[in-house]
Amino acid sequence: MNRTAWLDDLGALLGPTGLLRPDQGLSANDREPFELDWRRRYRGQALAIARPDSVAQVQAVVRACAAHGVALIPQGGNTGLVGGSIPDTSGRQLLLNLTRLKQVRAVDPANLSLTADAGCTLAQVQQAAQDHGLLFPLSLASEGSCTIGGNLATNAGGTQVLRYGTARELCLGLEVVTASGTLWSSLSGLRKDNTGYDLRGLLIGSEGTLGVITAATLRLYPRPRGQATALAACNSLADAVALLSRARGLLDAGLTAFEAMGALPLDLVARHHPDISRCTDALRNQGHAPPWTVLIEHASPDSQDHADQRLQALLAGALEAGEISNASLAASDTQRKAIWQLRETIPLAERTEGLMVKHDIAVPTSAIPAFVEQAGQQLQARWPDSRVVCFGHLGDGNLHYNVQPPAGQSQGEALLAFEYQANQVVFDLVDRFGGTLSAEHGIGQLRCDELARRKPPEALAMMRSIKQALDPQGLFNPGRVLRPHDEP
Amino acid sequence: MNRTAWLDDLGALLGPTGLLRPDQGLSANDREPFELDWRRRYRGQALAIARPDSVAQVQAVVRACAAHGVALIPQGGNTGLVGGSIPDTSGRQLLLNLTRLKQVRAVDPANLSLTADAGCTLAQVQQAAQDHGLLFPLSLASEGSCTIGGNLATNAGGTQVLRYGTARELCLGLEVVTASGTLWSSLSGLRKDNTGYDLRGLLIGSEGTLGVITAATLRLYPRPRGQATALAACNSLADAVALLSRARGLLDAGLTAFEAMGALPLDLVARHHPDISRCTDALRNQGHAPPWTVLIEHASPDSQDHADQRLQALLAGALEAGEISNASLAASDTQRKAIWQLRETIPLAERTEGLMVKHDIAVPTSAIPAFVEQAGQQLQARWPDSRVVCFGHLGDGNLHYNVQPPAGQSQGEALLAFEYQANQVVFDLVDRFGGTLSAEHGIGQLRCDELARRKPPEALAMMRSIKQALDPQGLFNPGRVLRPHDEP
Repeated sequence: MNRTAWLDDLGALLGPTGLLRPDQGLSANDREPFELDWRRRYRGQALAIARPDSVAQVQAVVRACAAHGVALIPQGGNTGLVGGSIPDTSGRQLLLNLTRLKQVRAVDPANLSLTADAGCTLAQVQQAAQDHGLLFPLSLASEGSCTIGGNLATNAGGTQVLRYGTARELCLGLEVVTASGTLWSSLSGLRKDNTGYDLRGLLIGSEGTLGVITAATLRLYPRPRGQATALAACNSLADAVALLSRARGLLDAGLTAFEAMGALPLDLVARHHPDISRCTDALRNQGHAPPWTVLIEHASPDSQDHADQRLQALLAGALEAGEISNASLAASDTQRKAIWQLRETIPLAERTEGLMVKHDIAVPTSAIPAFVEQAGQQLQARWPDSRVVCFGHLGDGNLHYNVQPPAGQSQGEALLAFEYQANQVVFDLVDRFGGTLSAEHGIGQLRCDELARRKPPEALAMMRSIKQALDPQGLFNPGRVLRPHDEP
Repeated sequence: MNRTAWLDDLGALLGPTGLLRPDQGLSANDREPFELDWRRRYRGQALAIARPDSVAQVQAVVRACAAHGVALIPQGGNTGLVGGSIPDTSGRQLLLNLTRLKQVRAVDPANLSLTADAGCTLAQVQQAAQDHGLLFPLSLASEGSCTIGGNLATNAGGTQVLRYGTARELCLGLEVVTASGTLWSSLSGLRKDNTGYDLRGLLIGSEGTLGVITAATLRLYPRPRGQATALAACNSLADAVALLSRARGLLDAGLTAFEAMGALPLDLVARHHPDISRCTDALRNQGHAPPWTVLIEHASPDSQDHADQRLQALLAGALEAGEISNASLAASDTQRKAIWQLRETIPLAERTEGLMVKHDIAVPTSAIPAFVEQAGQQLQARWPDSRVVCFGHLGDGNLHYNVQPPAGQSQGEALLAFEYQANQVVFDLVDRFGGTLSAEHGIGQLRCDELARRKPPEALAMMRSIKQALDPQGLFNPGRVLRPHDEP
């Protein structure tokens, strides 16, 4: 059967809106939201874009692909940062977009769980929990458009991992279409199940290379009765790590966020978004941001007063111990939101300032100060004009460690050369501290080569064996996570 | 090479104390601690008992087994409940006991992590955390002799899963000897790492069928400043589930335990251990235990006063709402320990009372009342003389649902027939409620056949593919989890 006849059959199966076909006049504009990634780094060309509206249709698409040897690229909201859901440029890969599977299937408040289709946006899932007075704590900048299926496929992190864990830890069960087109379901909302291998955990974070997630059962939590948020100024990262230990000891699970921001990212926000920067005014010294500013959030199941009091106690102790030089506590929900807006505006301010070579690394929290010091020294020594924009989830040991190239190296070949070399400096140091080159963004296309170089060969061998075992034809998101020629 | 020569070589490699050989006069008494399981249900006969004292020796043993096609059975403290670490009776399987690997390698307080050899006892790991003022929260009745390697291999649960998760959620990284004898290590203590498949999660709970865990890096937590513990009397399980929702809403992560105990298990404790039963006196009505008694624990990072006050507020609200009829709060640490001793004495009282057919099931918490009602009705209808001893981790939807056979059916063939039939009643209902036939004990030998019958075939197929991929010779704990003839 030729491609056109195969697509005709697939189109008959999916209905007129279920299959978008470039060979039938789909315009470049209409294709772009599916074929270009959010960071505009990867532009693919799909054989066609399948948009099934039922799980049975997903199974039918997978079976058709398996029968005809067509690779498929699962896609949710297309907000990933590593090109994991963009087809290659061959025009031979089928894009399988899941966004028409968008029902919240059930909420079970007594079991603190919720079951949703993979194509539900994260915001939709959050809202469904809130409608029952409950909390789904996964929270990301892209929550309005990313999907829960994509969050799970990439094991998304975000700002509350410290308290609630990553997407993997927030998921009780999955519904998955396997490479043979059968459906495996574990959606009953169990909190404990020791009947064999952790298939749920394995599929989560596999970036669509082992199966297509069509639904998930998620953990819900009670909503806190009070949330207190503060900014604190630290003279060093070592002080910030000491503050983190103090905060965990005093607040335990009440500590829901602990974000660190270097002086440069805050100065960029001040330059490009002065209104949003105002919440840092009290901490600035003659207009300069302190070396490190920490965003701390305390959630209390008791009350707003309790949340405020305990956070104040933390800050008072830290001031006395010299771990912070100053602090400013949000006095209202408006001020609280302003502090979060500051944190979330950093990537925008960065983008306005110019191109950055970005890293999403983690090392043990205890090693963070040494890592940042040594990485900064090495980059400065080699590229005196480069600048480091460093911020992120210090509570998880996870920093967005971004490097602005020196003048003249921010475009074309020069940029690619700089990027490669800067990556080697950063990742060599990450390796030395036992860290990871991707804490939360995943591998996708962007980090495939580095992963092949740097992941222990024993781990790569196990990953390849598992890929071969669960997707023997190699049709699920090929060339992502594992390189094509690394696959068995 | 024949077996004797092979054992000679292995013995030379492991040294005089590293290999115990039945063919060289090892007595039945000396073998029993390794070859008989704790519940005295499985007695095996090993080719020999290897006791390596280094990771390199573990690798050498695995390589020798791979080269000679000898199956190996990993074993920790031999406290498992499903026969997972007992060799078969063929005398051809090598028992690989890990208890000589018993160093706590490192504690990193600033990273809240600890790295320990697989053979460390759970109590030893708890103590190492406590020595640094920190908490390793996994807690089991067998903690004095079970090993952390065994806890991870079986994804152990226990009494604090509600707050801290199972062993899998408490583990940041593993060191594992693979089927080819290579070493894969991920011990650097990262809290986030999205570089490929979740091998850590897959190995945890695989019961020694995919690799041999030799060390692990574990999550530590701050120790709470106050712990308040109460017993509360409920007239029904539905009331207990309502109380659970109230408790989670009011205490959130402060709720560290929520155990339910039926009237019969508490009456057995009263009969066989009257001293230990005294803490229930205030809740008894004319000597009878209430239909359900709930053990609630609240841990506070603030203070003992805060722990007490919030638990009192919970109980007052529940009394007013009619969810509980009475409650008794521990007024001292001694009383607190007495309450826990009550809970932990139930299995002993059961054992004294007579043989029980035991089940370790979970269903969604919201379905617990219907499950218990229907299971009780069906068992009573079929065996009017049988009795149900039901207690367990209600907060996780996990009950130990044990059935005492009617008179005349507690031995020999009659017992086996009763056990099989009672299992079918219980597991059919578990299936109807979307539950699991093993919430925390695992599969081992005991539940292999039921798993093959009841696990969805798609899941079994994926498990078999993974087993084949990671242990192609099938030498790691064969016939456990997956049946030999189910394996590829």
